[in-house]
Amino acid sequence: MSPRNAFYAQSGGVTSVINASACGVIETARKHKNKITNVYAGRNGIIGALIEDMIDTNRESARNVAALRNRPGGAFGSARYKLKAIEDNLAEYERLIEVFRAHDIGYFFYNGGNDSMDTAHKVAQMAKRKKLPLQCIGIPKTVDNDLPVTDCCPGFGSVAKYIAVSTMEAALDVQSMASTSTKVFILEVMGRHAGWIAAAGGLAGQGRDEPPHIILFPEVPFDQKRFLKRVDECVRDYGFCVVVVSEGTRYANGKFLADAGTVDAFGHAQLGGVASVVANMVRDNLGHKFHYAVADYLQRSARHLASKTDVEQAYAVGKHAVKLAVAGETAVMPVIKRVSDKPYKWKIESAPLSRVANKEKFVPKRYITKDGFGITARARTYLAPLIRGEDYPPYKNGLPVYVALKNHPVKPKLNDGFVV
Amino acid sequence: MSPRNAFYAQSGGVTSVINASACGVIETARKHKNKITNVYAGRNGIIGALIEDMIDTNRESARNVAALRNRPGGAFGSARYKLKAIEDNLAEYERLIEVFRAHDIGYFFYNGGNDSMDTAHKVAQMAKRKKLPLQCIGIPKTVDNDLPVTDCCPGFGSVAKYIAVSTMEAALDVQSMASTSTKVFILEVMGRHAGWIAAAGGLAGQGRDEPPHIILFPEVPFDQKRFLKRVDECVRDYGFCVVVVSEGTRYANGKFLADAGTVDAFGHAQLGGVASVVANMVRDNLGHKFHYAVADYLQRSARHLASKTDVEQAYAVGKHAVKLAVAGETAVMPVIKRVSDKPYKWKIESAPLSRVANKEKFVPKRYITKDGFGITARARTYLAPLIRGEDYPPYKNGLPVYVALKNHPVKPKLNDGFVV
Repeated sequence: MSPRNAFYAQSGGVTSVINASACGVIETARKHKNKITNVYAGRNGIIGALIEDMIDTNRESARNVAALRNRPGGAFGSARYKLKAIEDNLAEYERLIEVFRAHDIGYFFYNGGNDSMDTAHKVAQMAKRKKLPLQCIGIPKTVDNDLPVTDCCPGFGSVAKYIAVSTMEAALDVQSMASTSTKVFILEVMGRHAGWIAAAGGLAGQGRDEPPHIILFPEVPFDQKRFLKRVDECVRDYGFCVVVVSEGTRYANGKFLADAGTVDAFGHAQLGGVASVVANMVRDNLGHKFHYAVADYLQRSARHLASKTDVEQAYAVGKHAVKLAVAGETAVMPVIKRVSDKPYKWKIESAPLSRVANKEKFVPKRYITKDGFGITARARTYLAPLIRGEDYPPYKNGLPVYVALKNHPVKPKLNDGFVV
Repeated sequence: MSPRNAFYAQSGGVTSVINASACGVIETARKHKNKITNVYAGRNGIIGALIEDMIDTNRESARNVAALRNRPGGAFGSARYKLKAIEDNLAEYERLIEVFRAHDIGYFFYNGGNDSMDTAHKVAQMAKRKKLPLQCIGIPKTVDNDLPVTDCCPGFGSVAKYIAVSTMEAALDVQSMASTSTKVFILEVMGRHAGWIAAAGGLAGQGRDEPPHIILFPEVPFDQKRFLKRVDECVRDYGFCVVVVSEGTRYANGKFLADAGTVDAFGHAQLGGVASVVANMVRDNLGHKFHYAVADYLQRSARHLASKTDVEQAYAVGKHAVKLAVAGETAVMPVIKRVSDKPYKWKIESAPLSRVANKEKFVPKRYITKDGFGITARARTYLAPLIRGEDYPPYKNGLPVYVALKNHPVKPKLNDGFVV
């Protein structure tokens, strides 16, 4: 069979290492010219395929492609755009197949989380139905670490490292101020459903008496009375209290703390973060002086503090996605398999997309201490290797050098003004 | 004259490099054993002197003292504790002199900002009045960069680097999401009165069309209409908008934006940050999807991303403080003098505390673009060298190694239960 083109798209919230996966895909595809002519990247993810706005990665130098390994954000643009069930959205699936056929695309690499693995799976089904030979490969990516089957998700290790280091550093700060000033510090982290990122904050200390003293997980129903009691104990026993709170923390009735019903001076609902809600609880009930930080996009774009393990795994899943594709596989995703904890060893295997799609992996009970405020030794064994190693980007004049690609468009062939 | 002891204290909000100054003081003092027997550090700053709770730094190994150079937070504890005018607070000044006399302290090093330089100055006056030979030396430290006379303040360069890098990274993130998701990203930074830290965010981009598109300074009265117009223009022209907002941003009437009069579900006033106030403005008036981050203590404790220039200057002012003291100077502060911009060269000089105390240096008009939303070329020339160079701490198992000192107490001599 003569070589064909590949289509690669980034999907959903980006990470600081998603482009390391792109780098793995492109560099590996370039080594298989007998099978893959070119990698077209979707401008703004899958939307780029739908509206026929694709990027010609053959126009990028080997040096720039290699530099993708260091660049945070989505180098081609990502999209929060979920294709619905085939029966509800036949036109878009047909459109994808039409564009892929027009551009002789024989490989589809979709770099995303649960939703995207579902999409990749459906595209595989549609291609089969439409008799388009298409290898559909999912590439895992999510800071939330909530994909099943794979031991961990590329993107997570670097956020985990950022949150662990930031918690450690901020704790040293507040500890030194606590005698006359701030006594409670609260750090809000991502993780709307799963508390993996919050759990990673626990790596900053070694036990109950070291910061963070309290972790609030989405998996543990929030009990204000118990929480405030523990904050007060920490201030009494250690002089200060550091709290890592997941944005997804909720009450037993399922209501998010962040939906606190706050209104501004005009009576408009405030979209306050959970950190300010928790901070105000501390102030109103205990009176301790507090500070809070909201890490938000900083945590998932902090390529300057990426985990070397994470960067290597992100590259590896991109590379193996191509290996699977050229070996004729379809509807699969490379997964990270942990071979041993000490020393930490891992390898890449593959899993059918049907096993991965639309499933979420939560922090298990055995990883959370009995009081619900900390992580267990088993959680440490799992988390610790994922943040290991530093992988600094190059710097110039005090700032990281993050490559800007040409992102040259592929000439459209359909040109029919399809809109999404 | 026989050698005497020195007293060193950290004051006010800590920085990621304040211990580099402590390192400079202790290492240099150890080279002048003929003049300085020991450096006693105040536990929790000046309070440690008042209640006779001092730390014996001679008990720390050379290796641990050297490691102070890398450790964020205040290694001996700091204090937000301002001694008032001598006439209003005679007892505390007398107490200080009493403790210094009891412990044969001949050198007083006070590492802080404007207020602390005022205190150091008053202590010098009091010592003279009480006929205690005491060399009083201020050591500059403040992330706010608002001390006069000195070209810049140790602590600022590292926050500046952190904010510039974080802005750059988050901008790459939001840019890649903007087609279908977040279009406006807001980063809240420190600087209650002076906008130096906000200005540093401007280093992330090269001009008006690069993020950050908007900087909100305390020095520029906030005009909601003009602000929203510019946000909308950016979203239209660039697809997204990145805003760096100083916590001290205020309306023309002087009222802080953060005092937005927001109340929670119980009617309690909310101490919301300025980022959420600005974000809600954007939502209510423009409807763009937004995200915001609050850097808070993360920015001033981020030793993992310190500026090498800043670390060197922090060490140098500590070292020179001792040099000035052993040379018989008093009531002075080492200042950083810029010798040239390109190449960046600096040296240490000294200034009388009376010229530094209680004065604030604001971002001058010539550093802010005419529209009030950006920094000028002159600001870049000033700021750029301060973030230059990386100075990574050592890592173990994926986390920075930050030294924990013994902090062994000096045996009290007065033991009279003085309380503050």
